[in-house]
Amino acid sequence: MNAIKDSVHDWIPLGPVAADLVDTPALQRLRHIKQLSTVRLVYPSASHTRFEHSLGVYHLAREALRFLGVDGDRADHVRAAALLHDVGHGPYGHQTEDVIRRRTGRDHDEIGQLLHETELAGVLESHGLDPDRVADLVAGEGELGQLVSGELDVDRMDYLVRDAHHTGVPYGTIDHGRLLRALRYRDGRLVLAEGNVPTAESLLLARALMDGTVYRHHVSRIAGSMLERACERLLDGDVSVERFRRMADHDLLVALDESVPALGERLERRDLYKRAVWADLGRVPEAVTRMDRDDERAAAREIADAAGVARQSVLVDIPPRPALKESRTRVVVDDVVQRLEGASELVAALRRARRAQWCLGVYCPESALEAVETAAEDVLGVA
Amino acid sequence: MNAIKDSVHDWIPLGPVAADLVDTPALQRLRHIKQLSTVRLVYPSASHTRFEHSLGVYHLAREALRFLGVDGDRADHVRAAALLHDVGHGPYGHQTEDVIRRRTGRDHDEIGQLLHETELAGVLESHGLDPDRVADLVAGEGELGQLVSGELDVDRMDYLVRDAHHTGVPYGTIDHGRLLRALRYRDGRLVLAEGNVPTAESLLLARALMDGTVYRHHVSRIAGSMLERACERLLDGDVSVERFRRMADHDLLVALDESVPALGERLERRDLYKRAVWADLGRVPEAVTRMDRDDERAAAREIADAAGVARQSVLVDIPPRPALKESRTRVVVDDVVQRLEGASELVAALRRARRAQWCLGVYCPESALEAVETAAEDVLGVA
Amino acid sequence: MNAIKDSVHDWIPLGPVAADLVDTPALQRLRHIKQLSTVRLVYPSASHTRFEHSLGVYHLAREALRFLGVDGDRADHVRAAALLHDVGHGPYGHQTEDVIRRRTGRDHDEIGQLLHETELAGVLESHGLDPDRVADLVAGEGELGQLVSGELDVDRMDYLVRDAHHTGVPYGTIDHGRLLRALRYRDGRLVLAEGNVPTAESLLLARALMDGTVYRHHVSRIAGSMLERACERLLDGDVSVERFRRMADHDLLVALDESVPALGERLERRDLYKRAVWADLGRVPEAVTRMDRDDERAAAREIADAAGVARQSVLVDIPPRPALKESRTRVVVDDVVQRLEGASELVAALRRARRAQWCLGVYCPESALEAVETAAEDVLGVA
Amino acid sequence: MNAIKDSVHDWIPLGPVAADLVDTPALQRLRHIKQLSTVRLVYPSASHTRFEHSLGVYHLAREALRFLGVDGDRADHVRAAALLHDVGHGPYGHQTEDVIRRRTGRDHDEIGQLLHETELAGVLESHGLDPDRVADLVAGEGELGQLVSGELDVDRMDYLVRDAHHTGVPYGTIDHGRLLRALRYRDGRLVLAEGNVPTAESLLLARALMDGTVYRHHVSRIAGSMLERACERLLDGDVSVERFRRMADHDLLVALDESVPALGERLERRDLYKRAVWADLGRVPEAVTRMDRDDERAAAREIADAAGVARQSVLVDIPPRPALKESRTRVVVDDVVQRLEGASELVAALRRARRAQWCLGVYCPESALEAVETAAEDVLGVA
Repeated sequence: MNAIKDSVHDWIPLGPVAADLVDTPALQRLRHIKQLSTVRLVYPSASHTRFEHSLGVYHLAREALRFLGVDGDRADHVRAAALLHDVGHGPYGHQTEDVIRRRTGRDHDEIGQLLHETELAGVLESHGLDPDRVADLVAGEGELGQLVSGELDVDRMDYLVRDAHHTGVPYGTIDHGRLLRALRYRDGRLVLAEGNVPTAESLLLARALMDGTVYRHHVSRIAGSMLERACERLLDGDVSVERFRRMADHDLLVALDESVPALGERLERRDLYKRAVWADLGRVPEAVTRMDRDDERAAAREIADAAGVARQSVLVDIPPRPALKESRTRVVVDDVVQRLEGASELVAALRRARRAQWCLGVYCPESALEAVETAAEDVLGVA
Repeated sequence: MNAIKDSVHDWIPLGPVAADLVDTPALQRLRHIKQLSTVRLVYPSASHTRFEHSLGVYHLAREALRFLGVDGDRADHVRAAALLHDVGHGPYGHQTEDVIRRRTGRDHDEIGQLLHETELAGVLESHGLDPDRVADLVAGEGELGQLVSGELDVDRMDYLVRDAHHTGVPYGTIDHGRLLRALRYRDGRLVLAEGNVPTAESLLLARALMDGTVYRHHVSRIAGSMLERACERLLDGDVSVERFRRMADHDLLVALDESVPALGERLERRDLYKRAVWADLGRVPEAVTRMDRDDERAAAREIADAAGVARQSVLVDIPPRPALKESRTRVVVDDVVQRLEGASELVAALRRARRAQWCLGVYCPESALEAVETAAEDVLGVA
Repeated sequence: MNAIKDSVHDWIPLGPVAADLVDTPALQRLRHIKQLSTVRLVYPSASHTRFEHSLGVYHLAREALRFLGVDGDRADHVRAAALLHDVGHGPYGHQTEDVIRRRTGRDHDEIGQLLHETELAGVLESHGLDPDRVADLVAGEGELGQLVSGELDVDRMDYLVRDAHHTGVPYGTIDHGRLLRALRYRDGRLVLAEGNVPTAESLLLARALMDGTVYRHHVSRIAGSMLERACERLLDGDVSVERFRRMADHDLLVALDESVPALGERLERRDLYKRAVWADLGRVPEAVTRMDRDDERAAAREIADAAGVARQSVLVDIPPRPALKESRTRVVVDDVVQRLEGASELVAALRRARRAQWCLGVYCPESALEAVETAAEDVLGVA
Repeated sequence: MNAIKDSVHDWIPLGPVAADLVDTPALQRLRHIKQLSTVRLVYPSASHTRFEHSLGVYHLAREALRFLGVDGDRADHVRAAALLHDVGHGPYGHQTEDVIRRRTGRDHDEIGQLLHETELAGVLESHGLDPDRVADLVAGEGELGQLVSGELDVDRMDYLVRDAHHTGVPYGTIDHGRLLRALRYRDGRLVLAEGNVPTAESLLLARALMDGTVYRHHVSRIAGSMLERACERLLDGDVSVERFRRMADHDLLVALDESVPALGERLERRDLYKRAVWADLGRVPEAVTRMDRDDERAAAREIADAAGVARQSVLVDIPPRPALKESRTRVVVDDVVQRLEGASELVAALRRARRAQWCLGVYCPESALEAVETAAEDVLGVA
């Protein structure tokens, strides 16, 4: 069995299905999509890719299946799903999901289509695997799908540790060996065995700390807003969403440079907008916190007009209301399966803590800061 | 400047005072006192010593002073205090504190006495340092004393990371570089600069997770109770508390082997008592949670008699009511210094979570488990 | 002082000059140039960039200067040179050096020109630094230039450890703390202090082991040959060498995809040529080992014709005769400065070991392997 | 299956045999024997034990057997042997081997006896294992014995990485994943598969670098000589070799403190002798390099008399002539099994390098340095 050296899990052995899947263009494309998109503008060491992450998820899925005693055909499908779970991503990963969804009306995970229409179908079928089953697993469906996408999925276990390794921020360093060993099935649901409330809490806390320090760092958010706006303008031009979603990072960077140079060059050179407004929930009217992207753009135009600056130079960034998917992790307590939020005092507090971290941002070039601040507070009703 | 290789901080340069202090018997003795006493019966890699930890604390103190811009005579005293902060420990560190305190009526930190009566006094004075000032700093007194002993002290920053490194449990891996850089003085109080509520929370969470998984692991608690009982019997014999408190781990192990072989050999061979009762706050009468050591021993005797087993074979272990010293960390929020417990939603939740983790234990040899369980529940009124 | 989180050196503080230099397009461009170019096709975690490496080299230069007691104006120039030492690189770093050199007749290090003609000049001068002095230091000139480029330079100390961290191959993990502490100046030459022959050997051995396992891995060499050939064809087209050398990796990938799709797509998808011939020094005529790039291409054409395959589908890859720059490291032995090759038995052996590792490669698509093997052995006289 | 957390290999699962063996006094005793004895006087973090190492060796044996496809009864015996390979060690491990051997006329590995006479026999037999077969494997006998004790044994793979982790010296960090995957059997001999000469060399080099920097550090050698002399005096007193060899480190430390306080206290406080003579092979007569321990002691007495100092205050330390066991590692080259020394240029050079590192030492208290130096050079004929 072939093995690939990984900086996080050391040697990752590849089974025959994985070895063939790795050689497909769909998976090789992930070598060119960074795991943390704009985060690397804050943490320069974080240049790792979704290819590397996909191998890691595959590896942890193998381990989890081994601990759970699942093998044969069912395990083959899960491992394939783990390896392929990210092939549906557009360039810059999650950062372009919204843009794509609004243009196509569908989620980034048009994974079913990909598994049918690309060379992936042939590879899966040549090993006796069913692309539809794999797609369902990627979508988190069924008992085993929870391993691939769910509160206790191996995706999360890999990215927390990997992002910690590559950013240098230690908070994500969970003990995945302990988590994997604690996995159980109870009535068809993936749970953590008795005595593992702290194990579940550690996962939740790692995620929360990485969120604040890494994933939602304000510099990354500013760059992300600029990128999203630039992508929208690219798609307003002559690039189709079909072509766009199959780009890799380098394709997008070059396309932006050519078609939206004002933003493209700034992104390339990390010459970013600044924060004109940075307001927490207490200062922002309820209605504003519920704005969608169209509302955001309308508000940005209104602010720009009021401030007397070019419309493209104001960005309004309203993050989703905080959620905590991990809080729904199931744990066994006194032989009863419970949601973590029922079993742990920490969950409710973390929810509140995340609410406290929520911030609306309005960004613009440094020269326009003063005018935009006044206009934005006025237009958005920020206290 | 000489430098010592450390597995956590890499090279630790020693200034002239430190180089001379390191060569004293008082500090060399810490080579023979393990940092985590009975924890290494759970985590076999955790054999590290208070000597190694003292060097680490010295190193972080140097860094903190550099970031805070403190130098000269004041810095010399702080660095000496950091290096010496643990010389007052008895064998097996914190595990014998209680035993010593009850016999002497004083805390383990008879550091002032040590700094006067041992060769340490001469070394300090030969470098123009005042032993009393050093002792005050070790006790956390004054502005700079907070660096050595306080909510934001470098002791904590070292042991969390070091214990994580040596146990292999990643939860303690805080970002001390970030903490040190965020230290400030405001009105004579050590605080974390604006924007560091998450930094403070990360310290608190690391401590909480390590507590549950490492420091208060039930196997370590059982061994700790056995050790404490054995020490009491040793001191009931012909070993004086003065001799006892200056023992190193190896002296104590041999003394127990000779004088209290029943427990001594069990500890040496990790042939530990088992849990007859393990009850959380909900099952334990309020009065029982407030028992002191004398009460514990009386209860243990009563249980033993009721169960018809030898008195020395029952141990009652009632941990202190949970506290969270780190929750009083001061942070700057909107330019105002606040206690973390006021600024963070997490603190109150962690307090409750720790209450939920609190467990009373009654331990005995495996053969007596059944009898002792019934008797203990009866005697202690455990529901 | 600002600080950047690095996955290798933890927090890297940036002085005012560095902070301004980091914001220039010339340095930001290095975010888009990978440190190990085609090596990441073998080690998927190795996506790190020359930007990250430049920060690391800057950091180690600061440390080295501190240990050597160099400060003021001289130190400022060295730190700037360390940070800027790679800005002259073309896309894919060393991999395109040869291509550029042959077109321009000059080395990749047209650093002097860059320091004068770009915004770097202004930034340096605004801090009172002389671009020419910086350029000389980058070129390794003068006493302090040896720190930036020489047998004991901080460039090497950073990349060995960094490449080990990111590939997951541990062989490069040198002890840079020890190396930095052992640096001395003797008669204007940078040397390692008495007692450090093993320290010097460890550097040499780390380099040798990383060479075989990472830097000269055959898969990376194949991809590198394909890339080089593709670049030549790009430059034979309408891309000028001036534009080429200022490209970043993503620009080159897109340009190759568009202009040389046969090779560009293969590189993007890791659909690489295979080895038709892989021959060590014993099998290769002396004259062949001395071929230059023009000879290589002529031989490739001849082989293709003889094999009856398209000319572009044969690549001949003749690496330079092995050298060991580190063997000229100076060490103090019995108070006399010596070259390491005179003081260490290992050096000569490593030279021979590297000769033994030398391999000529001829690569082509899998389908042509048989025909090309016969033709190549014939044309090149491989035994 | 139970699992133990290890700081090097993360979670180590224990099979039923191992779980029972771990609970025996013979194995628990290894918790109290440090892996690196006097080395921790140089590297304070290196307090790890032979217990932890034994678990690591067990783990790597399991991995190796899995890669080699060995299972069933044969694998059970190998795993038991791996776990037990060090139970025969005296206190302070290798440091007391010589002392014990001279008194008993037998090697430290009276493992066969231990496996028969202690509780280990019962545990092994209760699982259907044959103590004699286990003892033979520990001695390196038979095909599978090479895995436990031989040039490619898992003992070496564990201790290099573990000692690197705990000392902080990175040189030992080999890639054991690669080594384990390259193991093969050819005609009953354990070899490394084709293409692994560099893998074998990396092991050899790691060992050589750790030797110079860690294992043979002069401070550790001085302390080792003092310890050995103190043990001899202990055994000249009323401690029998039978009792001595079953001591753990703490027993020995206390015994020395009581019976040989002059040396015992010095060791405990790291108040070590200094080097009066430190001479390489070029300065030492051939006959002296071949001295045995009795000759050494006679020479020490003669030197003491000539110097006019107390006999017990001179130590002569003549290390064995350098050897390189790893150089006999078997590797497959062009489908032929060869010794590494035949396949690698580095081996001969490393041999010479080790000869160059060889040093004879004469040690004494600081006050006697001058007198002893003159006398020792005279008595030993050191140039």
